[in-house]
Amino acid sequence: MPENPLHQLLNPKSVAVVGASNNPMKMGTLQALAILKDGYAGRFYPVHPTEKTVLGRPAYASPRDLPEAPDLAMLVVPTIHVVPIFEAFAEIGTKRAIVISAGFKETGEAGRALEKRLRDIAASSGMRFLGPNCVGIINTAISLNMTIATMEKRPGHLSFASQSGTYITQTLPWLQANGIRFSKAVSCGNEANIDIIDVLEYLGEDEQTRAIILYIEGIRDGRRFIETAQKITPKKPVLAQYVGGSAAGARAGLSHTGAMAGPEFLYDGIFKQAGIIRCSSIEELYAHGWVHATQPPLRGRRLAVVTNSGGPGTAISHNADRGGMTVPRFSEELQAKIRPLILPHASSANPVDLTFHMDTQILAVAIPAMILESGEVDAICVHGAMGSGFLKSIYPHVRELAGNLPEETFYEQMSLDMTAAAGIPAKYRLPLIVSSFFGREDNNTAGYMDRDIPVFNSPEKAAWGMASLLRHLEIRDRKPVERAPLPPEHPEAGGLIRAALAAGQTALDEFQAKRVLSLYGIPVTREGIAENEADAVKIADRVGLPVAAKACAWEIMHKSGKGLIALNIPTEEAVRDAFRAIRAAAGREVPILIQEMVAGEREFVAGMARFPGFGPCVLFGLGGVFTEALNDTSFRAAPLGPTEAEEMLADIRAKALLGEFRGLPAVNAPALAGILQAVGTIALLHPQIAEIDLNPIIIAGNRPVVADALFILKA
Amino acid sequence: MPENPLHQLLNPKSVAVVGASNNPMKMGTLQALAILKDGYAGRFYPVHPTEKTVLGRPAYASPRDLPEAPDLAMLVVPTIHVVPIFEAFAEIGTKRAIVISAGFKETGEAGRALEKRLRDIAASSGMRFLGPNCVGIINTAISLNMTIATMEKRPGHLSFASQSGTYITQTLPWLQANGIRFSKAVSCGNEANIDIIDVLEYLGEDEQTRAIILYIEGIRDGRRFIETAQKITPKKPVLAQYVGGSAAGARAGLSHTGAMAGPEFLYDGIFKQAGIIRCSSIEELYAHGWVHATQPPLRGRRLAVVTNSGGPGTAISHNADRGGMTVPRFSEELQAKIRPLILPHASSANPVDLTFHMDTQILAVAIPAMILESGEVDAICVHGAMGSGFLKSIYPHVRELAGNLPEETFYEQMSLDMTAAAGIPAKYRLPLIVSSFFGREDNNTAGYMDRDIPVFNSPEKAAWGMASLLRHLEIRDRKPVERAPLPPEHPEAGGLIRAALAAGQTALDEFQAKRVLSLYGIPVTREGIAENEADAVKIADRVGLPVAAKACAWEIMHKSGKGLIALNIPTEEAVRDAFRAIRAAAGREVPILIQEMVAGEREFVAGMARFPGFGPCVLFGLGGVFTEALNDTSFRAAPLGPTEAEEMLADIRAKALLGEFRGLPAVNAPALAGILQAVGTIALLHPQIAEIDLNPIIIAGNRPVVADALFILKA
Repeated sequence: MPENPLHQLLNPKSVAVVGASNNPMKMGTLQALAILKDGYAGRFYPVHPTEKTVLGRPAYASPRDLPEAPDLAMLVVPTIHVVPIFEAFAEIGTKRAIVISAGFKETGEAGRALEKRLRDIAASSGMRFLGPNCVGIINTAISLNMTIATMEKRPGHLSFASQSGTYITQTLPWLQANGIRFSKAVSCGNEANIDIIDVLEYLGEDEQTRAIILYIEGIRDGRRFIETAQKITPKKPVLAQYVGGSAAGARAGLSHTGAMAGPEFLYDGIFKQAGIIRCSSIEELYAHGWVHATQPPLRGRRLAVVTNSGGPGTAISHNADRGGMTVPRFSEELQAKIRPLILPHASSANPVDLTFHMDTQILAVAIPAMILESGEVDAICVHGAMGSGFLKSIYPHVRELAGNLPEETFYEQMSLDMTAAAGIPAKYRLPLIVSSFFGREDNNTAGYMDRDIPVFNSPEKAAWGMASLLRHLEIRDRKPVERAPLPPEHPEAGGLIRAALAAGQTALDEFQAKRVLSLYGIPVTREGIAENEADAVKIADRVGLPVAAKACAWEIMHKSGKGLIALNIPTEEAVRDAFRAIRAAAGREVPILIQEMVAGEREFVAGMARFPGFGPCVLFGLGGVFTEALNDTSFRAAPLGPTEAEEMLADIRAKALLGEFRGLPAVNAPALAGILQAVGTIALLHPQIAEIDLNPIIIAGNRPVVADALFILKA
Repeated sequence: MPENPLHQLLNPKSVAVVGASNNPMKMGTLQALAILKDGYAGRFYPVHPTEKTVLGRPAYASPRDLPEAPDLAMLVVPTIHVVPIFEAFAEIGTKRAIVISAGFKETGEAGRALEKRLRDIAASSGMRFLGPNCVGIINTAISLNMTIATMEKRPGHLSFASQSGTYITQTLPWLQANGIRFSKAVSCGNEANIDIIDVLEYLGEDEQTRAIILYIEGIRDGRRFIETAQKITPKKPVLAQYVGGSAAGARAGLSHTGAMAGPEFLYDGIFKQAGIIRCSSIEELYAHGWVHATQPPLRGRRLAVVTNSGGPGTAISHNADRGGMTVPRFSEELQAKIRPLILPHASSANPVDLTFHMDTQILAVAIPAMILESGEVDAICVHGAMGSGFLKSIYPHVRELAGNLPEETFYEQMSLDMTAAAGIPAKYRLPLIVSSFFGREDNNTAGYMDRDIPVFNSPEKAAWGMASLLRHLEIRDRKPVERAPLPPEHPEAGGLIRAALAAGQTALDEFQAKRVLSLYGIPVTREGIAENEADAVKIADRVGLPVAAKACAWEIMHKSGKGLIALNIPTEEAVRDAFRAIRAAAGREVPILIQEMVAGEREFVAGMARFPGFGPCVLFGLGGVFTEALNDTSFRAAPLGPTEAEEMLADIRAKALLGEFRGLPAVNAPALAGILQAVGTIALLHPQIAEIDLNPIIIAGNRPVVADALFILKA
């Protein structure tokens, strides 16, 4: 496997910047200043056509004048100048570049052509590059900041790959205020060469990165994305926000980086398949990423809540419960230890609610230690360890009464041993999340943040952060995702499909479709094609009465309501009647499919559709009349291993129908999952199939049987 | 109608405080200081048993020593002293009190008795009081602050009734940082006398209050809550957070204020019935409340998005779309006006994405004005109008290059005409929400906030805020909620139920249940009770073959899987067979119900259960086998008007089944809604019925028919 291109790109020994000048309000200048001022120790070369010095450093008129081929070149120049300068770097042997400049694919035809030129130059010279239309990178490990804003220099363990550059520039002060620090951050831009999957792969291997967050507007190689993520997620949490799923979101994304978005439900399924935890906002992405990057992994569901007031305790408990955690009542022994530390009317049960209480040492150190030593929980949330922030809110009132005590002295009253308070996760190897209505202006909040304890500004967020840790516990507990190699094409199936296409068919008829299914091991109804009444009766006797009769021709895709289908035909005589009636309704000598009636109360659907970037994707859902009304479906990209197919089954809301249910036996899950896997296999082996729709799959006893099937062929 | 007790309580001309001293770290002292320091102009009397002066004011040894009966008394004393002091205030004629002290109902039996004493004293003296176990009140209109923290003095238009006191004290600095200001805030505590519904009613009438937020752990008088809210919500938005719905949440709430919580699904339905917008966190409650309190009402769904970068534009668009808004592409005319103001590669379509751009005047004034003048949208979100916050993030890098320009002078570079930028909602009567990663440290963020424009710290929150405005547009567009007076009890139904109870029945048999239903106008299957085979055949002929036969006895509540039911009986002979077979299975001469078979593919369920505080509540959902598997149900409290019942129908996920569906006609919605209304009526008229379960209600053609019914009686 070739070395990941990010390795050298994020760790250059020398950097050249084209587009920096001595004008402080230019983007290139700001980026060069960030390199110079934020502590990068490598060699730095400004390239400028006219200036002799830039930012106090000797400037070079062109890449060809540089004293060495820099490890990394950054281009922040008008679009028109990008290609020649890029070419010059390629010529001198520079192997990594970042093209900040916009005006490429996202602007239309001419921009696409220009972007292709960059790709061609890169391909022929071995250059790998980020962008165009991006914002730069951050690697705190070597104090390298190539964005426009100042960077928090202390390295963190959270790394970010983003299809929006803003989220790595406008957000830097916001992150600092929230105590969140990057290890690496990469703005991916138009992904003409290096894409977000390359970045993901690199971060998966990077030892300084403990959690990865992704901001995604569209993925172009779904298969590689899934397989890359699946290698990482059982060990390292990956979180993602996806915002391309609505029409307006897709249009905005397209105009932004030219990314092709896919539907909401598809990304939802793909993230689950990949083991990626989905976040619903950029705030949540950062916040939960920070929780994963700083806290020990969660090992169970039991949460302790310690608070100085009721509302936040209730809100944390309620939201933790909704997120799958439990808030167990503490044992009498543990409560007996806690009680002497709290007021008589306060609660020791869990949540421990101290009520209004000024001793944060008890709230944030003494009681948490008792709880975590007990072994009764797997994690803890603390609300209300407020210090100077709270005191500031009362100081204007009490100043005189407190003998005009200086503000700072007054604040010392609520001091907390931060080493002990923030040392809990390391000491007990259990996660701690704090919530407080006081931000960094509060010494305790700042103290926690500076010691890598997440502090959220509302109690619900603490609970949601814990729930996110629980999601990764579930992903770690997943069965391994294993896939068998793709079997060979079945010659009869291939022949049948090619013959249908040659005959001008745009679909298979039901009998053909079922034949293909059964060649790949999918159980279908027993059935036969009758060209006359005698045949019909013979087939009915073979499959067993009662039977169904259906007009069977590829151009009749929807049969109901037109007299082209008869169900529950009880007798031979009735079979003959049905045969005649259907031919009369069809108005021609259509072949008639005679089919066993499968009895079963539970019906499901399986299907396949192809999506740009993802290839064939498999659908599973509630079948029959409910498919449309409830839209209770799950999606995954093919091929599917057994684990992935079984997870699809469990991913519908009506999953209770799959278990023992009102006297019915549990569905044979491996058999049903096998159908989903086989649908994916068929789609991969036969690219001429555009869509598959198996609806209903009836559960006969515990055994799934496909009762109707539609294959649409590519025009 | 008596005057709402909050009127006098929130607007006292004189206040006495018991529990304030000269110790600045006591809660009572802090609360007295808040009254004294935050600008209250009324008369203030400290009551203290020993001190001669408290906080520089002459102190009185007991309420009886006061020079007048104060309009309002506040008690912040140890639990044991509360009752005698409270009694003394009642004696001198004080009519309003706030009991801050805890240690009452929330602590158990003794506390409950103590709380009852307060209620009794109040009842006999005409005293009305808040608490016990609360935090106080804020009324910015008269600069009255009775909490422990300093208050932002400029009045806002948002009012809050909270079952958590913390949310009115710990949050005050947080609210200030977010530019959110109260009109009134009331901590409800244990609600021994005045409850949150009284507060809601008062705020509904209060002209200074434009939006109301509620933090709820449990409602004790559901009926009054719904009716009070229904009067307010068509005009004034009411938002609520409910956190009692999980086991841990309920336990936490109980230990906190002794509130009785109800299940999640119940509150979800009740809020919809009441027209209350539900929020999922305290942050959202404040934030959306602030949007409603400051922005003009939304009049349509069309949203404009203006941004300086792609990610936030995409995120706002995506989330607005998910919230029911549209982000329409602008007309060519409008785009042609916008284009000259933006870079060539920037997008004018909507979102307008200026890309990296330093001229906030164009972003936040010029382009929004063009858009809003066009009439093409109903609201606007702006992201990226950053000023000094952004400049602070680059200043350390550019300082030298900018000739060591002083920080403040440097910040003036990105100045924005805030009067124009924040004047948009007033000028165009359309809502504006801003998002920025920069908080109050940014002059533009602060400028917006100080002019009542909500600024949220992530783009998604701006979209969610807009969606909240849309929720209130939908509530304003609701059909009026009208209820007919409760009809009289049907004597036969009453007789039947009383006779069943007298006979020791704990349920009605199906025939009895259907009889009660049909007496109240609910359509049921045609059927009759057969005591012998001949009767059975006679009934079958009357209702029409095929029929169903069921063992019919109140103690046989679940018939399936036991041979006690036969369906689709096609012939008279088969009716006789079924009669014998069921009697054999029952092992006794059980009466047999002979019933028409109703044909229909769609099945629903209606039901009734009683919940503490809410009385009988009606359920509607997907019926048959899916009731249990999908749990797709909606709840409302009885009685139901036609609007409320029809809204219940639309409140299930599978609502598509109610319309025209796969060749089936639309369900007769008034008939189905009528069943729900009648179920509520039956429950209200017959309190002896504990539960009702009508499952399935089969849709025959378009007409709902109850095919099975179970009534559980109270033991």
